[in-house]
Amino acid sequence: MGNPRDFIGGSKWNLDTPCLVIDQDVLEQNLQNMQAHLASFGKGLRPHAKTHKCSIIARQQMAAGAVGICVAKVSEAEVLVKAGLRGVLITSPVVTDQKIVALMECLFRDPDLMVVVDHPTNARMLNEAARKQGSRLSVLVDLDPGMGRTGVPFREGLALGQWIHSLPAMRLRGVQCYAGSVQHILNFEERKDASLGWMGQAAEVFRQFRQNGLPAEVFSGSGTGTYEIDCQVPELTDLQAGSYTLMDTEYLQIGCSRNPQKFEKFPPALTLLTAVISSNHPGYFTVDAGLKALYHHGGIPSVIHPQGLGLTYEWRGDEHGKVSLPAPGKRFEIGEILELVVSHCDPTVNLFDYFYVARGETVVDVWPIDLRGKCQ
Amino acid sequence: MGNPRDFIGGSKWNLDTPCLVIDQDVLEQNLQNMQAHLASFGKGLRPHAKTHKCSIIARQQMAAGAVGICVAKVSEAEVLVKAGLRGVLITSPVVTDQKIVALMECLFRDPDLMVVVDHPTNARMLNEAARKQGSRLSVLVDLDPGMGRTGVPFREGLALGQWIHSLPAMRLRGVQCYAGSVQHILNFEERKDASLGWMGQAAEVFRQFRQNGLPAEVFSGSGTGTYEIDCQVPELTDLQAGSYTLMDTEYLQIGCSRNPQKFEKFPPALTLLTAVISSNHPGYFTVDAGLKALYHHGGIPSVIHPQGLGLTYEWRGDEHGKVSLPAPGKRFEIGEILELVVSHCDPTVNLFDYFYVARGETVVDVWPIDLRGKCQ
Repeated sequence: MGNPRDFIGGSKWNLDTPCLVIDQDVLEQNLQNMQAHLASFGKGLRPHAKTHKCSIIARQQMAAGAVGICVAKVSEAEVLVKAGLRGVLITSPVVTDQKIVALMECLFRDPDLMVVVDHPTNARMLNEAARKQGSRLSVLVDLDPGMGRTGVPFREGLALGQWIHSLPAMRLRGVQCYAGSVQHILNFEERKDASLGWMGQAAEVFRQFRQNGLPAEVFSGSGTGTYEIDCQVPELTDLQAGSYTLMDTEYLQIGCSRNPQKFEKFPPALTLLTAVISSNHPGYFTVDAGLKALYHHGGIPSVIHPQGLGLTYEWRGDEHGKVSLPAPGKRFEIGEILELVVSHCDPTVNLFDYFYVARGETVVDVWPIDLRGKCQ
Repeated sequence: MGNPRDFIGGSKWNLDTPCLVIDQDVLEQNLQNMQAHLASFGKGLRPHAKTHKCSIIARQQMAAGAVGICVAKVSEAEVLVKAGLRGVLITSPVVTDQKIVALMECLFRDPDLMVVVDHPTNARMLNEAARKQGSRLSVLVDLDPGMGRTGVPFREGLALGQWIHSLPAMRLRGVQCYAGSVQHILNFEERKDASLGWMGQAAEVFRQFRQNGLPAEVFSGSGTGTYEIDCQVPELTDLQAGSYTLMDTEYLQIGCSRNPQKFEKFPPALTLLTAVISSNHPGYFTVDAGLKALYHHGGIPSVIHPQGLGLTYEWRGDEHGKVSLPAPGKRFEIGEILELVVSHCDPTVNLFDYFYVARGETVVDVWPIDLRGKCQ
């Protein structure tokens, strides 16, 4: 469909659909608001790039004052490190031979690269690889907040730290505890209780590190849903929020400290444009965004343009969406454009190759989603 | 992670995970079985490339005897036409200015390109664009089998056909009727009744075309779930099956004519390999495939290697899966590889850039998923 940069200078309503659009003013405001909030509590921001998968946004986050960037996978780290970012943290264990080779290449370029470890065998493998290369690898002990994913149980955290500290090519830095399962609890007070419970246990391990003479410079964790809450944990050094940048309906529906009904501080910077391609019925019409353009997860996308008609979106297979009108009225014409807030931003971003970037309604830039598809 | 072709000649168990693997023997068998079945009923096969999104497989389907290839979007057609395929059918209406420009470029390269139309306004727009270019565009009237997606109501099919036939740069060829909503009905007899109901109404429109002197060379429709059933519709000229190539658990659980419990004729050619990255609990462990590697739709992926342990997969966020063991026994080590049949092949394929192709356990080729991300 030609070069996406050809759309720069035009109206976003003329973009080829379906496509993702970032409102640059909102994005900048979101980056600054999170940075300022954490700074006011003396906390660092280590934003997670798994949300936006875009090295341009990662650089903006570093420029705004982030202490580093998180990624979930080695293949994501490779892209960021090649793009010149330093101090990248890989937030999942890196265990296979293929990936340890790739990790060592990243470490060679970025000596401040960090990775989490949740098993002594993995620590030994990483130590061996780093030793052979003549490098030292920075490591956080990954603690398990009971979500059935990764991490060592809290009671084994100190022992794993001691083991890692004993390995010559490992540089123990501290702990990670990411309680992903509490981030979307709707009620703010319930979310607060759950998060402080887990983070308190992680803080105890962090204190054990100090009491036992282990390095304890970094206690990294938390996310967009608990950023207000976890700033109250004295030991926590930095927060791994990701979704605050772009936002989605799944996060917008949770409560915050000021408003139990809505997550107010971070409006959606990301939207999806989709065109009406079939309109043969009074009560509904069909748009060109289905499973492959709007990831089927996290709730229901919301239609924000046109507003006031009560339009509701539902998936209709891989390629289509059905948009219903609550009462017959306006008849939509083929070719009309709708704007939606997506339901879950992370996997939806991963379906596209670039963001169109707009100021108001004018397209001002195109940013490659250069970590797209990097799930290895 | 290096060049994927570097893995050719090695064992599939050494691939970097998560990744998609095609068993080439099974794929070839599936292509031949569908082709032979339809030929025995005098029907053509017009396979849908939205499933595999791979021009190499599309060429194999043409070589096996397909009458043409279907795609859902213009951006997919662009890739296939540039790859040299001819007679591509776009199975959704093409309505926006951007896309009509791209469609005309495809038509310039592929004079046998076809597109469906479900609205007179759209027919007029397409006619105008083709006329300006000095081309004629082949068109099928898209009929609506009540699934709330695209298509004109059956009772308006003849009138739309007559309108299209009156436009000088349009070349009416016939009708399309794809009843997507019946493809996954579990019970074979219920699926048969539903499909024959819709296809019978479409056949009536096709007969009206003939009775009224309209061109009626093509009646295209049907899918993998109804391929046995719709061969009984005399007017149907060709079938648009897609998933039979790769298969998934959503299709494997429906009944067929010979077996009410299992869709037997097309075993899964596509699998996903994923590695154990965390194993700190007796009852479960964590693998490196989550929402971004296994699309969250269509049922539950099934673990086919290792077999006999009753392992069950569940999604655990964007990057991870939790695999449970029914009874404590074997303890999985980090780095072990599992093989899964995916739940819904089409959107899962769209998450990856290439297939690894294996004969037995040996990687013999790498095929780019060159239509990946083409949702425009």
